[in-house]
Amino acid sequence: MKFATFRHGGREQAGLVDADKGRIVPLKATDMVDLISRFKEIAPTSSSVGASLDLDLVKLLAPIPRPRRNIFCVGKNYRDHAKEFASSGYEAGAIKGAEIDDHPAVFSKPANCVVGPGATVETHPGVTAAVDYEGELAVVIGSHGRNIKRSDAKGYIWGYTIINDVTARDRQKDHRQWYLGKALDTFCPMGPWITTADEVDAENLQLQTWVNSELRQDANTRDLIFDIPGLIETISAGLALVPGDIIATGTPAGVGLGFNPPKFLKPGDTVTISISGLGTLSNPFG
Amino acid sequence: MKFATFRHGGREQAGLVDADKGRIVPLKATDMVDLISRFKEIAPTSSSVGASLDLDLVKLLAPIPRPRRNIFCVGKNYRDHAKEFASSGYEAGAIKGAEIDDHPAVFSKPANCVVGPGATVETHPGVTAAVDYEGELAVVIGSHGRNIKRSDAKGYIWGYTIINDVTARDRQKDHRQWYLGKALDTFCPMGPWITTADEVDAENLQLQTWVNSELRQDANTRDLIFDIPGLIETISAGLALVPGDIIATGTPAGVGLGFNPPKFLKPGDTVTISISGLGTLSNPFG
Repeated sequence: MKFATFRHGGREQAGLVDADKGRIVPLKATDMVDLISRFKEIAPTSSSVGASLDLDLVKLLAPIPRPRRNIFCVGKNYRDHAKEFASSGYEAGAIKGAEIDDHPAVFSKPANCVVGPGATVETHPGVTAAVDYEGELAVVIGSHGRNIKRSDAKGYIWGYTIINDVTARDRQKDHRQWYLGKALDTFCPMGPWITTADEVDAENLQLQTWVNSELRQDANTRDLIFDIPGLIETISAGLALVPGDIIATGTPAGVGLGFNPPKFLKPGDTVTISISGLGTLSNPFG
Repeated sequence: MKFATFRHGGREQAGLVDADKGRIVPLKATDMVDLISRFKEIAPTSSSVGASLDLDLVKLLAPIPRPRRNIFCVGKNYRDHAKEFASSGYEAGAIKGAEIDDHPAVFSKPANCVVGPGATVETHPGVTAAVDYEGELAVVIGSHGRNIKRSDAKGYIWGYTIINDVTARDRQKDHRQWYLGKALDTFCPMGPWITTADEVDAENLQLQTWVNSELRQDANTRDLIFDIPGLIETISAGLALVPGDIIATGTPAGVGLGFNPPKFLKPGDTVTISISGLGTLSNPFG
């Protein structure tokens, strides 16, 4: 099943998406985090609160428009990207020959830099001159858990969506800790919806990113260095995950800094990310 | 004025503190973020919703028990601490002779690792063997602002409180990005209350931290490398600050990793942080 958050008739609601038919059914949950938290109780397939709507006539928002806390993000989680980053000159403290980390680099993006499909991402002239894209598979947590073993991790995953971990490379480098480079307003496009875990083979998804019509990233999630069960084990160690938490799992090679000279984004560009079975997330940059 | 969040008779409320008389007056705000957001409208000195209570008979919580997003934190913001950290072996990528950063290192702590005065901080055996304290002055933002100039920054500060930026040094080092080492459940004691900006000379506050009865940190906020107006200018560049945002400004020398061998915390220890005019924050570790 696929669930989206949408605005229609001035109201923001969660809905069940039928992507093939291009329809969405409004649900009685107060919002997506409520739907996730009470998923069994709400029984979404039988709890519609109105007739289905044409997907083209509603405005899709980020599936979780206001996360309860910052988004967990993982850096350098594909080998070819770790190498392009280390050799780009934009990784503070990069060590030649040690491009692949022994432990995942985890950072966060502020909850309120999330925007939805089609929303314009700001390029922030005056703040950064090096705006870059990062197409990523994101995991949505479905239930409360701490010290989750990797063998149990899949039971905590509610679904998957797409995130563009937009990054100001100059700020990422200058401040050494990556947070400020990742945190600018509108720097977290998410969507178009969440596909529930039962429909997704997360270890074999093709991820493609285009800038305008140029294919820049084309990789498979089987090549993650730290796999999803391992990331959940690592992040949940001593840190309780809660329903609606989001983990962006890292980006493959092909980001703008990997080119010589770098191909950073400019106003008028559109970045489109597609992951098999999860749909397409496209955002103009302005 | 000093404002606290407290629990009494099963209810959680914001209140006006009279520290000298040991009393607290319940206010009609729904919570502290509401009080901050509508401060002028609420006029707290004339909006009590009940008789004053004995401070000793209420349970103080963190002044902002559930921040709307992660807490902004600054690392390596006192010279002597930057040096003790770089030479400790716990700073990934430390460079000899370049202990002082050109730009502040900003990271975050998850919103829900906040705990209040007196609450027990977990030591998380099995997850970390290197729990350390960091006494810090924290700024509480009072109004919405983006691209705030340092000359205007003070107008955005509502008040100040104390934070213990508890850190698992082994995780901070292993993962290179500091987030996981800073993010364990209960790792953000905050309090005892927020003192409004008009009562505080933030550039001349004595900060002292004790572990049990041993004084470990004793510094003045005039020694911040990146001062508070500068931090607000840097963090708000392209990133809108909102009422209730919290910025922890960094810790001075004297943390556990600065000793040889390091003096990490163990169950039964109590960490007490005092900042002139802001009160005392004390938490047992269990």
